[in-house]
Amino acid sequence: MLKYIMSEDAEIISAKRAGFCFGVKRAVNMAFEAAKRGNTVHTLGPIIHNPQVVEKLKEVGVYPLDNLDSPHIETIIIRTHGVSKDVSDKLKKKGYNVIDATCPFVKKAQQYAKLLKDEGYQVIIVGDIEHPEVNGLMSYAGKDVIVINKNSYLPPLKKKVGIIVQTTQPVDVFKKIVSEVVGRVKELKVFNTICNSTDLRLKETKNMAKKVDTMIIVGGKNSANTTQLAELCRSINVTTYHIETADEIDDDLILKGKKIGISAGASTPDWIISEVENKIKNIKKGNM
Amino acid sequence: MLKYIMSEDAEIISAKRAGFCFGVKRAVNMAFEAAKRGNTVHTLGPIIHNPQVVEKLKEVGVYPLDNLDSPHIETIIIRTHGVSKDVSDKLKKKGYNVIDATCPFVKKAQQYAKLLKDEGYQVIIVGDIEHPEVNGLMSYAGKDVIVINKNSYLPPLKKKVGIIVQTTQPVDVFKKIVSEVVGRVKELKVFNTICNSTDLRLKETKNMAKKVDTMIIVGGKNSANTTQLAELCRSINVTTYHIETADEIDDDLILKGKKIGISAGASTPDWIISEVENKIKNIKKGNM
Repeated sequence: MLKYIMSEDAEIISAKRAGFCFGVKRAVNMAFEAAKRGNTVHTLGPIIHNPQVVEKLKEVGVYPLDNLDSPHIETIIIRTHGVSKDVSDKLKKKGYNVIDATCPFVKKAQQYAKLLKDEGYQVIIVGDIEHPEVNGLMSYAGKDVIVINKNSYLPPLKKKVGIIVQTTQPVDVFKKIVSEVVGRVKELKVFNTICNSTDLRLKETKNMAKKVDTMIIVGGKNSANTTQLAELCRSINVTTYHIETADEIDDDLILKGKKIGISAGASTPDWIISEVENKIKNIKKGNM
Repeated sequence: MLKYIMSEDAEIISAKRAGFCFGVKRAVNMAFEAAKRGNTVHTLGPIIHNPQVVEKLKEVGVYPLDNLDSPHIETIIIRTHGVSKDVSDKLKKKGYNVIDATCPFVKKAQQYAKLLKDEGYQVIIVGDIEHPEVNGLMSYAGKDVIVINKNSYLPPLKKKVGIIVQTTQPVDVFKKIVSEVVGRVKELKVFNTICNSTDLRLKETKNMAKKVDTMIIVGGKNSANTTQLAELCRSINVTTYHIETADEIDDDLILKGKKIGISAGASTPDWIISEVENKIKNIKKGNM
């Protein structure tokens, strides 16, 4: 039973800021370039949180690794999220050919974490403790580092506190936590390390979600920033589907109404977004 | 026509933190001590925002001045709010015997303003631009200083911003402004210069106001922190009177209900608070 109840005159709108951000584009290019040079190339963990891009890279000889104990490592790529100081030191020590594809904005956040620690601040990282970017940031932030997200209880703090923020966090969560902290300390130094493109993508997607009947968010199910886009749309009560590829547009996915919005995370490649757009356009034409 | 409709069994509660704070107590003591030494003593502006204390000081020979052009100045006292850098320099140049009764917390805020300016931050002062403390702080904060209060529109900001706050501002206003600023800058350094005793007095008065039928706030009509206490009580819809002395407890002041709360600003002397308490107790006993 087909469940598409999209109007014949339905409008399909795609977000301008959907898809690869600067840091992801740079990292994926670096991986394809490394593969061209003919070495065995590995990435430490999936290069970005998008399974389809990881598969494409395998086709040209770039393989993700879980750890550094595997034999036969020649060239190793540090992914966009960056790595902890320990891992960075280990990579140097092992003498691999290291390609550092850490997003420059993440690199900057790591430097600020170290700077705050060196200046004697207790460092708070606003972000998700499970995320590899935060894991890397923590290693630079000193022993008394605290990771806080929107649901966390604020523990007792020292008098002099520094704050940095995971580059893909929503600005409202960051502002709320800064406001809570400032009332409880004597001195606060904050680096707003939220990546501008994340902020703009969230805003554009939110505005779009307010105007459409159904939202399609395209990107890795393991991508935090894509999942965040889907959660944002659901929070304003629009029917929202988070899919990885056009193949997921099937009978279970109900496209209702006159306006369908499409947005995508920072790790979603253009070709997947295009496939989704085309499939929806074809449904509209009755060409399924 | 008498309008007191206070219950016979009415309870009268006084705030523990009503009255002179550390800085005011210190300044008033310094003024009385100076008077004892027999010189002509002047204060630059009223020493604190309480007309009755200023009158008491006149009785022992301490007179407020409007400006430094008056002749016959020997000893001059800088009041709790502090002075601008210009005035401070002028006082030194004129060779007066200067007694600096600037509240040590205000002095610290002045030092932080200078520090932020010297470190290249654009300084924001959260406070009331008309208040002499803020006037003093501004003179240390550099040319691009901005003064913001709860009603202000936030102007365009530089990327690197520092914030200090008038010592008597409510912490919620401060937190809200910090939160707005942090979303719009790259780097933020904040010194929470709110005086702890102000914060505690506001909290105690707010909690009291929630439990009583009428609030009496005692203190100078020209005292910002006293006025703030009265506004706070009114904002939670309790009948509130802001009076300077017990003399204002007359037919126009309706003391209704079973619980009467009394609080006072940081510049209100104990003897005035006691007079108010006693007058209300006498009303209760019908001894007016």
